[in-house]
Amino acid sequence: MRAMNFNAGPAALPLSALERAARELLDVESTGMSIMEHSHRGKTYEAIHNQAIALVRELLGVPDSYDVLLLQGGASQQFAMVPMNLLEAGKSADYVLTGAWSQKAYKEGKVLGKVRVAGSTEVDKKFTRIPKPSELELDADAAYAHVTSNNTIFGTQFQSFPDTGKVPLVADMSSDIMWKPIDVAKFGLIYAGAQKNLGPSGVTLVIIDKALTAAGRKDIPVIFQYRTHAENNSLYNTPPTFGVYLLRNVLDAVKQAGGLAGMEKHNREKAALLYSAIDARPDFYRCPVDKDSRSTMNVVFTLPTEALEAEFLAEASRRKMVGLKGHRSVGGIRASIYNACSKEWVQGLVDLMTEFQKGR
Amino acid sequence: MRAMNFNAGPAALPLSALERAARELLDVESTGMSIMEHSHRGKTYEAIHNQAIALVRELLGVPDSYDVLLLQGGASQQFAMVPMNLLEAGKSADYVLTGAWSQKAYKEGKVLGKVRVAGSTEVDKKFTRIPKPSELELDADAAYAHVTSNNTIFGTQFQSFPDTGKVPLVADMSSDIMWKPIDVAKFGLIYAGAQKNLGPSGVTLVIIDKALTAAGRKDIPVIFQYRTHAENNSLYNTPPTFGVYLLRNVLDAVKQAGGLAGMEKHNREKAALLYSAIDARPDFYRCPVDKDSRSTMNVVFTLPTEALEAEFLAEASRRKMVGLKGHRSVGGIRASIYNACSKEWVQGLVDLMTEFQKGR
Repeated sequence: MRAMNFNAGPAALPLSALERAARELLDVESTGMSIMEHSHRGKTYEAIHNQAIALVRELLGVPDSYDVLLLQGGASQQFAMVPMNLLEAGKSADYVLTGAWSQKAYKEGKVLGKVRVAGSTEVDKKFTRIPKPSELELDADAAYAHVTSNNTIFGTQFQSFPDTGKVPLVADMSSDIMWKPIDVAKFGLIYAGAQKNLGPSGVTLVIIDKALTAAGRKDIPVIFQYRTHAENNSLYNTPPTFGVYLLRNVLDAVKQAGGLAGMEKHNREKAALLYSAIDARPDFYRCPVDKDSRSTMNVVFTLPTEALEAEFLAEASRRKMVGLKGHRSVGGIRASIYNACSKEWVQGLVDLMTEFQKGR
Repeated sequence: MRAMNFNAGPAALPLSALERAARELLDVESTGMSIMEHSHRGKTYEAIHNQAIALVRELLGVPDSYDVLLLQGGASQQFAMVPMNLLEAGKSADYVLTGAWSQKAYKEGKVLGKVRVAGSTEVDKKFTRIPKPSELELDADAAYAHVTSNNTIFGTQFQSFPDTGKVPLVADMSSDIMWKPIDVAKFGLIYAGAQKNLGPSGVTLVIIDKALTAAGRKDIPVIFQYRTHAENNSLYNTPPTFGVYLLRNVLDAVKQAGGLAGMEKHNREKAALLYSAIDARPDFYRCPVDKDSRSTMNVVFTLPTEALEAEFLAEASRRKMVGLKGHRSVGGIRASIYNACSKEWVQGLVDLMTEFQKGR
């Protein structure tokens, strides 16, 4: 029986993408070899690699003036690569702090150049909302402005993005990329670790304005320059071939399920279902996040006591629901309901919430 | 029918490791989830992660005074990370050039600090041998001395490693790690992309003397410091979980097949079989590599004309042998016969060589 997977990431993947991988694992396209055993310079792999990139372009409507790169190292490596490439001497970069991941990005930027906090919603080490545009103090001369679009730990998400004018907007979308259509042209650079909505961990998607690729610094190691990967179609060095293959399978499943318009409807329905269940019993379940900052990907809530939360998690576990424990830094319950989380799983969780609260 | 896979990398993997992955792909250890869907902080993945590291330690006899790290980015990223961590200001690093990969490592080092060529066997853009110890001009004050243990393109391999005294020896062993037992204590740092003898691409093994981990620079991004990964058991950020899982499967298969002593016997037998077939018909097949520099992993040879080489490759393809075309920079034939290449496949190639040459 398949678990109801509410993991924050690595997270559930579309079953059809996994079934295809299982079927083809020993022999992809009748070549007598696993995709993992194919050369990254051979035509079997290269076709899959190009399909993966084409699906990113198609689903997100990426303009031709942007490069789509498949890299390694996760978002954590992008925390360093972004300033290495884009933070020239004499310039400063803006960071909007909305949680632990933006703080990490900011800290890594600090090692490499001049960075500023352009806004923060931190109170007592917690972040329960996204700042209003009026609260941001953006530097009109910044090399770039960095935001984290969705915060897995605190369950907050930008509902719209700040207008940074001529300053390139850089967004870490690791935990909500592809949850709905976006206008890529509003961003200078988007990056995302694959392990939520794209595929397995070990692949990192970067979408970058070609003007930024070209303007990037050249006095850094070749392997860390975006241009290196753009000029070589992400085949400068051996890519994580199986990861890219599976990302292709996942994006194909997203396309079959109605593309990003389909995903948005699916995700909004699940989020509505779950937040309604929380709000319907405000004396028992409580979401600490401001209503206009609530995430559609990570729904966090608490119960009246930690003892009740432990009981709730134990009952969830008996019903084969996994990954519901809140991050150790905030406690409580967290349901991560990315693209591959089904409405049935969310309904299962809502049923548990209803039954658990009854008589208490 | 399984192809006879002579790919240079990504390369053949042990069938048992793949079969296990296929069997468990949708449901690992009866958890109702793929290993790719498990949290890297959960006990199922963590046990596999620790098994992978323990198998590296056991098979290679890694001393306790060394860290074993599983990273991302391939050897190409190590070309940069090694000097970033170990090349302090005021110091210089030595590079022994034996092919395209050591040249790339040297070039990346040059971006980051002072580097020297301590020896090179390049003649007319080709490298047909490993330098003798007496040919090396090693700097006794170097931050480290870097070698590439095996050269996939030119088919050469160090039979023994230079004595660098107190200078840490850094070796890129991407293409021959685990082919036989080695004395890890002779090295300051060993690194290897997984995609030949360890597993799928996307995982990088680093074995580093803890003294070097501790002495590494602290003014570089946290993500690129070896200490970050050492202090966090390679779980600082999300690891490539499926890649590590498969590496575990591969190393388990190596252990079952007699460990590295078993691998050495297996590999020496295959190499002897193939080199004998070449040397038996010196007017037809020719290996351009000096006898005492020949690789046990990548066997390169030529035929009298390019037309005959094309015919040979076509016949190989009909017999379902793949990956035999030499690298575009050198031409000819290259048979990569890593751990997972069976003796039967090599015998198949030898049979083809015998039959092809007959009557010509």
